Amino acid sequence: MSIDIAQLERGIVKGDRRALSRAITLVESTRPDHRAMAAELVEALKGADGVDRQALRIGLSGTPGVGKSTFIEGFGGMLTGQGLRVAVLAVDPSSARSGGSILGDKTRMDRLSRDPNAFIRPSPSQTHLGGVGRRSREAVALCEAAGFDVVLIETVGVGQSETVVAEMSDLFVLLLAPAGGDELQGVKRGIMEIADIILINKADGDLKSAASRTCADYSGALRLLRKRPQDPEGFPKAMMVSALEDTGMQPAWGEMQALTKWRRENGHWDARRAAQARYWFGEEVRQGLLSQLATPEARAAMEELGAAVAEGRTTPAIAARELLERIGAGVWNG
Amino acid sequence: MSIDIAQLERGIVKGDRRALSRAITLVESTRPDHRAMAAELVEALKGADGVDRQALRIGLSGTPGVGKSTFIEGFGGMLTGQGLRVAVLAVDPSSARSGGSILGDKTRMDRLSRDPNAFIRPSPSQTHLGGVGRRSREAVALCEAAGFDVVLIETVGVGQSETVVAEMSDLFVLLLAPAGGDELQGVKRGIMEIADIILINKADGDLKSAASRTCADYSGALRLLRKRPQDPEGFPKAMMVSALEDTGMQPAWGEMQALTKWRRENGHWDARRAAQARYWFGEEVRQGLLSQLATPEARAAMEELGAAVAEGRTTPAIAARELLERIGAGVWNG
Repeated sequence: MSIDIAQLERGIVKGDRRALSRAITLVESTRPDHRAMAAELVEALKGADGVDRQALRIGLSGTPGVGKSTFIEGFGGMLTGQGLRVAVLAVDPSSARSGGSILGDKTRMDRLSRDPNAFIRPSPSQTHLGGVGRRSREAVALCEAAGFDVVLIETVGVGQSETVVAEMSDLFVLLLAPAGGDELQGVKRGIMEIADIILINKADGDLKSAASRTCADYSGALRLLRKRPQDPEGFPKAMMVSALEDTGMQPAWGEMQALTKWRRENGHWDARRAAQARYWFGEEVRQGLLSQLATPEARAAMEELGAAVAEGRTTPAIAARELLERIGAGVWNG
Repeated sequence: MSIDIAQLERGIVKGDRRALSRAITLVESTRPDHRAMAAELVEALKGADGVDRQALRIGLSGTPGVGKSTFIEGFGGMLTGQGLRVAVLAVDPSSARSGGSILGDKTRMDRLSRDPNAFIRPSPSQTHLGGVGRRSREAVALCEAAGFDVVLIETVGVGQSETVVAEMSDLFVLLLAPAGGDELQGVKRGIMEIADIILINKADGDLKSAASRTCADYSGALRLLRKRPQDPEGFPKAMMVSALEDTGMQPAWGEMQALTKWRRENGHWDARRAAQARYWFGEEVRQGLLSQLATPEARAAMEELGAAVAEGRTTPAIAARELLERIGAGVWNG
């Protein structure tokens, strides 16, 4: 594609959805010239038109089958109904492993995808975790610059994707299905620790009493966790929603707003955004250093020396020193 | 310390324990000159005296309280009683988080620590995971060169340490305590997938029937896992042992030997060692590239640009490009 950065910038600031789409495609590209342009675009948009545009970035995770698409359709529709503009992005670093489940699938969010105040972007098809995270963070920044009030960043409960999404979110919502109390342990401890609000979905019909028990179980479990400085009294909390019957959505949104207000007033919002910016800076630097292995010369040397190591002709440390010397990179320290 | 690599090499090959201890201290050092000497030593020992010395490397994991020290005392003592030489190393990348539990604690392995055919090395006090893993792998190579028949590599069930230990082990043993069936889910799925043998410890006294149930539960769970090419019929398997009553140790060792024999005969031993060597080569290279951030100049630039990013004066990608340019490293690709 031929790319005019200034034109893209103007389009995004005006809220032109086609410009936003094209810009996200640009930040998702792995071509070095595209990457350079993308970085310039994000930098330019940072201070565009002098307005401090900050969306509420909500990370949303849940295992397949929990009803994420239906929830987003209902929750997003409620927000646009209140005049808010909503963007939905997906981070799916493990598309190979999750068996091809598509996040941000527009066919499953039929109403929202036709809503003029909503923007849905399916997950990019890349598979490299570090890369996907960095690109998604920039896509979030583009949506923010485009004036969206809420950016929903959807992921599945597989591998490290929650941690990556938490590093680009202002608050993190875990969506769960009703279940017996014995399944409490199935939720990874790490996720419980980053969740701000746990929503028990499918609190309707036959599942209503199971949802109620699950909600009580998780409320109890959350009380056992150590208190975090970024939480006001009563948070993190578990609540029930029904995407199907469209109930519990407004209370959930109310709690998100209350939590956000408290964090803004107590300095936690800014502190978290600053810490996240530092984190992504470190990631960019680390990926930049590791990209020295991406040249054809480095790949060939990795292959040749890797074979020598595998066959026992040399040791990992000695071979690594030779590789770093050959590609003229790195300070070898064994 | 003043270091004579050739002397250390001769001492290790002769089985001199003081030489081995000093060499392990050398590979654990982070000083660049020590690192270079350590790499030379490991390389020199690789082909020392023309003998192909391969120890059986057994990774051993278990949460605190499961009775690891008592097990190692009993199991190690049984092996030395059969004329085998046994080394015990510890990998504890998370000493800060595990609340100061010491691995390879000699006071808890009183008999074994005084056994002339045993060598016990407590965990190094470093906290950097990548570093600890690489150093431990070299310590294993030193023990192998020193003629030990079995190297036990002990770790705790915290974080990523099992994966690191599995990457330097020929077989992996998970030690568990008897428990109700509902605690089955408490074991991380990832560990179940790398375990070759699960030992239910404390199968004695009042806990005997609980141990029997736990063993049956895990036997069932293991059968549900996908079969791996490196496993003969019946593996991975769960068995009961009692470190206290010293029962089940010989059957467990018999299974380890049977598994090892099958893997050796079917090419899996060599294939795994080759794959592990490649893995550690890659780790050495990655750590070498990232070590470009360890210079005072790089640290200062990280601090300065990190602050600019945190304050929103620039974006992570732009700041990363500037950092990589300043330290003259990396191929920036955003």
